[in-house]
Amino acid sequence: MLQRFTGQDVREAYVRIADFVRRTPLEDSIYLNDEDHRYRFKLESQQLGKSFKIRGALNTLAQLPRAQIERGVGTISTGNHGIAVSYACRLLGIKNCVVIVPFGTPRPKLDRIRFYGARVMLMGNDYEDALTLGLNYIDRHELFYVDPGDRDPRVYAGCGTIGYEIMVAHPKVDTIVAPMGSGGLITGIAVAAKAINPSVRIVGVQTAACPAVARSLADGVLYDKYPTQGDTICDAVVGGAGTLAFEMLPDLIDQIIIVSEESILDAMCFMAIEEQCVIEGGSAMVVAAVREYRDLVGGSDVALVITGGNVDGDMLHAALDAQLRTDG
Amino acid sequence: MLQRFTGQDVREAYVRIADFVRRTPLEDSIYLNDEDHRYRFKLESQQLGKSFKIRGALNTLAQLPRAQIERGVGTISTGNHGIAVSYACRLLGIKNCVVIVPFGTPRPKLDRIRFYGARVMLMGNDYEDALTLGLNYIDRHELFYVDPGDRDPRVYAGCGTIGYEIMVAHPKVDTIVAPMGSGGLITGIAVAAKAINPSVRIVGVQTAACPAVARSLADGVLYDKYPTQGDTICDAVVGGAGTLAFEMLPDLIDQIIIVSEESILDAMCFMAIEEQCVIEGGSAMVVAAVREYRDLVGGSDVALVITGGNVDGDMLHAALDAQLRTDG
Repeated sequence: MLQRFTGQDVREAYVRIADFVRRTPLEDSIYLNDEDHRYRFKLESQQLGKSFKIRGALNTLAQLPRAQIERGVGTISTGNHGIAVSYACRLLGIKNCVVIVPFGTPRPKLDRIRFYGARVMLMGNDYEDALTLGLNYIDRHELFYVDPGDRDPRVYAGCGTIGYEIMVAHPKVDTIVAPMGSGGLITGIAVAAKAINPSVRIVGVQTAACPAVARSLADGVLYDKYPTQGDTICDAVVGGAGTLAFEMLPDLIDQIIIVSEESILDAMCFMAIEEQCVIEGGSAMVVAAVREYRDLVGGSDVALVITGGNVDGDMLHAALDAQLRTDG
Repeated sequence: MLQRFTGQDVREAYVRIADFVRRTPLEDSIYLNDEDHRYRFKLESQQLGKSFKIRGALNTLAQLPRAQIERGVGTISTGNHGIAVSYACRLLGIKNCVVIVPFGTPRPKLDRIRFYGARVMLMGNDYEDALTLGLNYIDRHELFYVDPGDRDPRVYAGCGTIGYEIMVAHPKVDTIVAPMGSGGLITGIAVAAKAINPSVRIVGVQTAACPAVARSLADGVLYDKYPTQGDTICDAVVGGAGTLAFEMLPDLIDQIIIVSEESILDAMCFMAIEEQCVIEGGSAMVVAAVREYRDLVGGSDVALVITGGNVDGDMLHAALDAQLRTDG
């Protein structure tokens, strides 16, 4: 069994990272509310590096011993996690930071990883290959491997600070809805929020294109790799379930909702056009859940965790194109 | 001569409104920087109501006597100012708030004005008509008229808090670039920034479609109405020059740059696609200025004021459409 974490660990993480990260806003939805429901967006799309990932990276890296900081750190990522690790190293003055990505990683991601100071190394043709080769490289060079949300409780506790912030800012929130990729984020949020108010409902949302956590929990089997079926606009939340998430979530999660890629695309357009807020496909999952399954989401004072805002221009264009042409 | 305002008034405004507004981030540009220049975006697009306008409205309304608050307030606006006044009234508990708009005002603007609690009244067929009819209504009902940036020094000082925040967060900023509509925003920023560091350069940018402030200063004549020539994507910054701005700007502004609508559209797409930040056309003016006239902008540590993020979905789509089709 892996080392777990508690609400106390999240509070300590909050103290550790609060001077670095942004306390992101909880912003009213203009259009989702009705008489019985109020929805607020927790805008991690406005976080440093435009995603929540910096919270876990900072909480982990800030606890490294001096000698390890001097040897350096590394990770493997195709996106937001790599940007976050690079940014966290800049903030903490960690000079040797390597982010390993597969060939074919989109240029905007590479630009951002490099911008914050990390060295980018291209290895392998997909994430799995990059992971194998990258872990080997990291091991040989005695770098510290920054876990993306699989088994390091420090990463989970860092993510949990989102739940802590929500409950402190609005103690009356009765439901928190968050996207699930590996499940690391929602595990952290659930631990944090339930430590403050045990009756808070935790709702996880996953795309039908890659329901790794949902299937893992349903089958009682950890699918640490999971194939993506068909096209997805949720590139930030595909892949397998996290090991620690798989162990802890059964006691923490109240509802899982699977949403279709079509409804996610609709939700992304709804957010851009109606709410005038551009968010990633992975984040649009939670909005899709509210629009399609309001009763399953439940609650009356609901926080929706918007995890990231790094949206590719072509994808945004294609989404608006599909929507506005249909409407017109 | 109108009543003027000083750096001290801005500091007092900051204290007055700081608990209500967001201290918006100064975010590094990923793509504009080069060896000799660093550019940061002051993201008022993440402000309450998604524009800077709430700063002036709050600073003004927070100073009203009790009796006036009970009678109520009103304004005339087709957009961000109306949203801001409505939001400010909600924050301050001012129950009677009327926002007068012309017929044909886009639905998203009306939705937002109403969402924050104001009553919307439709009068006249364009802004000028609405202004005439609206001022009459406001006068008859003894409401307090919330100036949109023409002559009330409290509104100007409220806007100035942006300049104050920039200089406090990054004292090394040597140049501030801001959009000009009436010129109220840049006047406030200039007073605030030069009170802290008299050598800070202030650069104002205006669209060629409606260069009211630029022409007023060049001709020494206050054009308080100014026709828009051709189509513009800068709906937030058209109209005449502000009276107080016209009086004060000659001593404050170091450079004026006029940018074409074409370069503004390009800049808006650059921001959405490359920087992954969706901003209004009026705000994209400052980015256009850097991209087209880097030497005229000058400075080495430059803050670009991004005034708002309320972007119409159709406009965003049309902009991306034009850009991505050209590139493709």
